[in-house]
Amino acid sequence: MPKPIAITMGDPAGIGPEIVAKAFRDAPALTRGCFVAGDVDTLRRASGCIAGPGSVALPVAVLTRADEALGVPPRCIPVLQVTDPHGAIALGVVSGAAGRMAADSVVWAADAALRSEVAALVTAPLHKESLAAAGAPHHRFPGHTEMLQYRAALACAVPLADLPVRMMLANDELRTVLVSIHMSLREAIDAVTCGNVLETLQITDKALRPLLGRQPRIAVAGLNPHAGEGGLFGREEIDAIAPAIAAARAAGLDVSGPIAPDTVFMRARARDGALGEWDVVVAMYHDQGLIPVKYLGVETGVNVTLGLPLVRTSPDHGTAFDIAGTGRADPASLLQAIRMARSLAALPATAR
Amino acid sequence: MPKPIAITMGDPAGIGPEIVAKAFRDAPALTRGCFVAGDVDTLRRASGCIAGPGSVALPVAVLTRADEALGVPPRCIPVLQVTDPHGAIALGVVSGAAGRMAADSVVWAADAALRSEVAALVTAPLHKESLAAAGAPHHRFPGHTEMLQYRAALACAVPLADLPVRMMLANDELRTVLVSIHMSLREAIDAVTCGNVLETLQITDKALRPLLGRQPRIAVAGLNPHAGEGGLFGREEIDAIAPAIAAARAAGLDVSGPIAPDTVFMRARARDGALGEWDVVVAMYHDQGLIPVKYLGVETGVNVTLGLPLVRTSPDHGTAFDIAGTGRADPASLLQAIRMARSLAALPATAR
Repeated sequence: MPKPIAITMGDPAGIGPEIVAKAFRDAPALTRGCFVAGDVDTLRRASGCIAGPGSVALPVAVLTRADEALGVPPRCIPVLQVTDPHGAIALGVVSGAAGRMAADSVVWAADAALRSEVAALVTAPLHKESLAAAGAPHHRFPGHTEMLQYRAALACAVPLADLPVRMMLANDELRTVLVSIHMSLREAIDAVTCGNVLETLQITDKALRPLLGRQPRIAVAGLNPHAGEGGLFGREEIDAIAPAIAAARAAGLDVSGPIAPDTVFMRARARDGALGEWDVVVAMYHDQGLIPVKYLGVETGVNVTLGLPLVRTSPDHGTAFDIAGTGRADPASLLQAIRMARSLAALPATAR
Repeated sequence: MPKPIAITMGDPAGIGPEIVAKAFRDAPALTRGCFVAGDVDTLRRASGCIAGPGSVALPVAVLTRADEALGVPPRCIPVLQVTDPHGAIALGVVSGAAGRMAADSVVWAADAALRSEVAALVTAPLHKESLAAAGAPHHRFPGHTEMLQYRAALACAVPLADLPVRMMLANDELRTVLVSIHMSLREAIDAVTCGNVLETLQITDKALRPLLGRQPRIAVAGLNPHAGEGGLFGREEIDAIAPAIAAARAAGLDVSGPIAPDTVFMRARARDGALGEWDVVVAMYHDQGLIPVKYLGVETGVNVTLGLPLVRTSPDHGTAFDIAGTGRADPASLLQAIRMARSLAALPATAR
């Protein structure tokens, strides 16, 4: 018996609801069995705003339970109301009300995934300032990842520290998993410890095995230019990264590195239908991994949270307040995120 | 009266001599007026190693003066002996003898450019370990840039500090100028000062004006994720980068930023015949700039040294000891470097 996939609507003041509505309109086969966890009125407005002049807006099917999504006909938008309604939210403006509705949707979808009521969650973008203005309990989370980690720790009744997570960014050519994300570059260097790198390798190996159907070939980027050139330009490769690689290899993982950061992504890049030298690159900090993933365009980038007992993907862009409500937002990255969630969710739960 | 362009042979144990020989074989029009500053025997061996079975190796024309290069017929390799010969150098192996020969070639070519005897120098790759093993006076220079800076300071009789240099990496899609190069990432962060960033902007503006024939549109990358997100992830953008940009603008430069590092390169990328949002991106450290330039392949990347009173370009790859002598090395990046040197050298000396 298949389970539905929950798509959270994102911040109702941003492009989230529009790209979700476009996904149901443009990709009926891909979105079959998916539903929106969010607010019915917000999705009705989004459906109207993407309808061309003179054309009928896609109808919204109001669900009462998640599993009803499986029976909804194509080309309508199944929505489960999971947040208190709140009149019209002004488009393109930071507000605590919008932040609360967006966060409620994420919390509901995370808990549903942790209860195995949905197979995966795909999250449309939040606005960090609206989230911060949302009040308790949401305002203390900087973003999705931390919220999901907290819900998972609650559900599993384990301390947060026992559920380390990592962000993977992926497009058709390249996958990269980041040792750290939202901290200054100086703090990111401090976070390049043997323990953090090894943990990243373990999470990466475990998460990619079911996706690839085999052991992933992992490359590890150095931190310093030329991967430190034997200690000449920094010692993190010698003191932290190489020992982590050695420990991972001793545990049977297929890991190469540390490799010079300026060439490892190029070498890992899959192109012309051929695999790259590795299946994934472990990057030492946010921009090291995101610069190459985004270089060819953000349209098809997907963000995947690794390490949690649930499947979560999201598009690789923000709320784009500047174009919210115009109907111009591109759903390509969201569609890729749904595709990736399907691949991950089709696997037996034990393999995740 | 045109002047010749000197191509240094690079480390004789690496692929340098081969790709130089291939350039003369494959691109007679482009290499017209160019000559090799190096070792005759090394180039004879390289010519032999790129000749197919049963075919005649390209002849080497032994010059006695640089300007004789202008009269050498196409499809032979003009070589000026500028280093003491040294029997056969073992391929693919670090040696002080190879490092010395490579460095002698660079010193000769730099001095020739500073004497205005050659219009530009194009440098094939050095091996840093061989250079370190070469003994005095070469071993104290980490690479080409520092050697050139030293020769220029000597020739101009100014302190080294008066000749700040910056590395530009360029391919058909993207140009990036680096605030710092060969130092640890920690030291590179320390080097992100208002003074260093402003100096980089000034050097970049001055160097690109003649190349573009107009004022360059310069973007400045942030140092931290999301360019610091208003101080949340580091303060270098606020304390150093923004003040440098303000000072550059006050001096009339066209500068934007600081821009989030993970999107600035994508936005600056020229594609489908259209210019990117900016002509060049000033990157805060080595890998920030080199990852995107190299991501699409190193074949066409060119390294340009900005700030010196000479024109110097080089291919964007190393000595590739693993394939040296096989004849498999690709001369594409060297050919691009020769093309770029020609563009820069055709300009009046005053505009450089």
